[in-house]
Amino acid sequence: MSQFKYIALAAELKHKIISNVWRAEERLPSIRVLSSEYQVSKVSVQNALHKLEANGLVKARSRSGYYVVAQDSSSPVLSQTTQKAPGLVTMPAVFHEIMARSAAFDIYPSGNVKAPSSHIQTLNRNINRAMRQQAARHALYYGSPKGDIALREQISQHYRGRDLFISAEEICITSGCQNSLFLALSSCCQPGDTVAIESPSFYGILQLLQTLKLNVIEIPASFSDGLPTQALEQAAQQWRIKACIVTPNFATPTGACMPQEEKRTLCRLAQKYEFTLIEDDIYGDLGFHFSTQPLKGLDQQNNVILCSSFSKSLSRDLRTGWIMGGKHHEAIVHLSMVNNLANNQAVQQGLARFISEGHFRRHLLQYRQTLEKQRNELINILRENWFVPFTYTTPSGGLALMVTFEQTVNCIHIYQEAIKEGIIPTPGNLFSTNDAFSNSMRLSFVHEISGKRLAAIKRLGQLVRSHV
Amino acid sequence: MSQFKYIALAAELKHKIISNVWRAEERLPSIRVLSSEYQVSKVSVQNALHKLEANGLVKARSRSGYYVVAQDSSSPVLSQTTQKAPGLVTMPAVFHEIMARSAAFDIYPSGNVKAPSSHIQTLNRNINRAMRQQAARHALYYGSPKGDIALREQISQHYRGRDLFISAEEICITSGCQNSLFLALSSCCQPGDTVAIESPSFYGILQLLQTLKLNVIEIPASFSDGLPTQALEQAAQQWRIKACIVTPNFATPTGACMPQEEKRTLCRLAQKYEFTLIEDDIYGDLGFHFSTQPLKGLDQQNNVILCSSFSKSLSRDLRTGWIMGGKHHEAIVHLSMVNNLANNQAVQQGLARFISEGHFRRHLLQYRQTLEKQRNELINILRENWFVPFTYTTPSGGLALMVTFEQTVNCIHIYQEAIKEGIIPTPGNLFSTNDAFSNSMRLSFVHEISGKRLAAIKRLGQLVRSHV
Repeated sequence: MSQFKYIALAAELKHKIISNVWRAEERLPSIRVLSSEYQVSKVSVQNALHKLEANGLVKARSRSGYYVVAQDSSSPVLSQTTQKAPGLVTMPAVFHEIMARSAAFDIYPSGNVKAPSSHIQTLNRNINRAMRQQAARHALYYGSPKGDIALREQISQHYRGRDLFISAEEICITSGCQNSLFLALSSCCQPGDTVAIESPSFYGILQLLQTLKLNVIEIPASFSDGLPTQALEQAAQQWRIKACIVTPNFATPTGACMPQEEKRTLCRLAQKYEFTLIEDDIYGDLGFHFSTQPLKGLDQQNNVILCSSFSKSLSRDLRTGWIMGGKHHEAIVHLSMVNNLANNQAVQQGLARFISEGHFRRHLLQYRQTLEKQRNELINILRENWFVPFTYTTPSGGLALMVTFEQTVNCIHIYQEAIKEGIIPTPGNLFSTNDAFSNSMRLSFVHEISGKRLAAIKRLGQLVRSHV
Repeated sequence: MSQFKYIALAAELKHKIISNVWRAEERLPSIRVLSSEYQVSKVSVQNALHKLEANGLVKARSRSGYYVVAQDSSSPVLSQTTQKAPGLVTMPAVFHEIMARSAAFDIYPSGNVKAPSSHIQTLNRNINRAMRQQAARHALYYGSPKGDIALREQISQHYRGRDLFISAEEICITSGCQNSLFLALSSCCQPGDTVAIESPSFYGILQLLQTLKLNVIEIPASFSDGLPTQALEQAAQQWRIKACIVTPNFATPTGACMPQEEKRTLCRLAQKYEFTLIEDDIYGDLGFHFSTQPLKGLDQQNNVILCSSFSKSLSRDLRTGWIMGGKHHEAIVHLSMVNNLANNQAVQQGLARFISEGHFRRHLLQYRQTLEKQRNELINILRENWFVPFTYTTPSGGLALMVTFEQTVNCIHIYQEAIKEGIIPTPGNLFSTNDAFSNSMRLSFVHEISGKRLAAIKRLGQLVRSHV
């Protein structure tokens, strides 16, 4: 009987979670309180909680009790993109402006910004110190085209924590992840070549493909598991794919993560069909609860080019990224020199010191917690304030989630109305060459949603409603 | 009779200058002393000095007397490049390493570096202040793809002093002059197009042409007057030229400056033969005695793309350049965003303030004097310590001059020996796709030639001697 009681209790508690009576990250009443409230034994309560925990609905925190886990309302759904023959990318010019605004990841950019964290202040002090100490040398000499060796060594060490073992020699500093992606694509593709991407995909990549006159084939991806290797293999059998760009960990806009086995399969496919894998790892350090291995860590053929930067994990104003070029590394270093000559030495030296003293690691620990908290708050706000049907992704890392409305909604129109009021959602239209995601938008949880940002989110819900 | 006396005296004084008895920038004995020494009237001395001044051998400084003007031993000589049909650029891979080292413009990079000037310190303080004041915003938002508007306005105002009137809207900030040149060439040329360059020409441009798979046609240039428009027109009649890259003011390695009338003709040719003029203006602010107008100031058809940066005039570690894209500006801004996303905001804001408060202008006044003094010292050191036949250019601005030895000398070999001792000359081989300048080398006067740098220059003379 006690068995039935705990199952019935689990069902009741689950209902409270699903229906948002208990919100994400909320602490559940104590076992004693639940036992008394539902008139069941403490053992039954405990069994019910264990069942919920096994189903991923709650999680225990030691000496603190049980908490509601944020739920993904839409997993695992394949995106609506219909796969088409490879073709050149054409993006309406109006998209460029939206892209420039959307890079801010802020629903209301004129809102207040919190004071910088103590880690950012420490970083700035380190950069200032490097500027002062080497002022004359920095003014008179360019940095090495490969980048500061101390920084490259710190990056090399940092990746060990994610099961990627690579020497500083195999890393080249760039002016950011976008620049790394540019160097990667320019080095392994010629105009007219075909590049496979997941769909939805980062709009900066679509722009790159357009600029470099490359053909694109969009592989419909899962909102939770990212690029499906089976669909990619079918495409590779049909078309000559020269490169595949993928964000295996916390891809934008969905926040999807490829399962480890899929990552392995992807590396095997790259070898089998002889294409280069270009890995966008910019969100790789932002997993809330688990560390994610980069594809590069599974790359036995030196066939993966990893691109990343500190922009999303630390500061967008460092203009410091990196690339691990694999087979193409030498050509990439040369292209980087021709393209950019060198990068800021004081920033690199300050960063190297900041990382070596453990500040980056500590910053990440804190930042991940903040991001998870803000993701949960955003989801709760949406569920309580948006009176329209919508689904949303619940990424386990990164900076943003994707909401999807009914098929008839076109988010470009919502964007155009919102922007008049200073509200900047990122319409899904930007993440594909077709209109598969026109009824989706990316919402960021980089900022605390309160004050004017809270008002902006609520207002956005009203605008959506008028379009349903 | 007095007329003959002053001519004879002028000839004697000239001999002393040419034979380096009186060295560049040395003050001549006073008129009274010369009058007594040569037993001629003061009027004759004065007439002789006027004649020397008219010939450019001496110059008067008010209330201070006459000074020896540094002599250009090789003007105006056309370079030895034989003009060939357009072809792809192929540079030996070994050159890449030499180029990376040569960017330092330092004969002995392990030598001491003087403390930074007070202006550089002021600049760093301004950048630090911008970092502190906007720390949270900078961490969370990318800068505008076009660059900081305050900086663009300062650049716009700065160019007024050189007779170029252009609005901030027509300027885009880049990560340096090399990046600007990359954007310019990528925007107006397709692989296979033909680009005309002066010869000798900056090796960074040759690398760009190679990387972008462009054909090059090298126009033999004057060591003092730069690109000859007549030869360019002949080439334009014979071949379809898509773009012409030129450094009209203080071109590296010679320091040549195009006469104003030639600049006008060049702009007319660009219109007549429908090619884009890409102007490398990186040394434009470094004229010792006169301000030089950029081609862009003579550009009535919006057909000139001006590329520049602060690297040579202020600091190599700012990673901040600019581009004025003319007709191509919109495409260039977009390409810059795809290539590089944004630039460091704190640096741009610090620079804008530094310029607006007049520090940049004052820094340039001081730096030009220092450079001229060091150019003269370098020439004197070469003439006194190099016991080999050589000629040299005497640029009236910029950072370096070019020395040329007998035809049999190959400076790549000298470089390879010198580098073993930490001495880094820039072999002329780097400045052309053929071996027209293999018997030349670029020597920089960015640093004071004393101590270990003086020893390095002397040692280099010995190495050359062993190759003659």
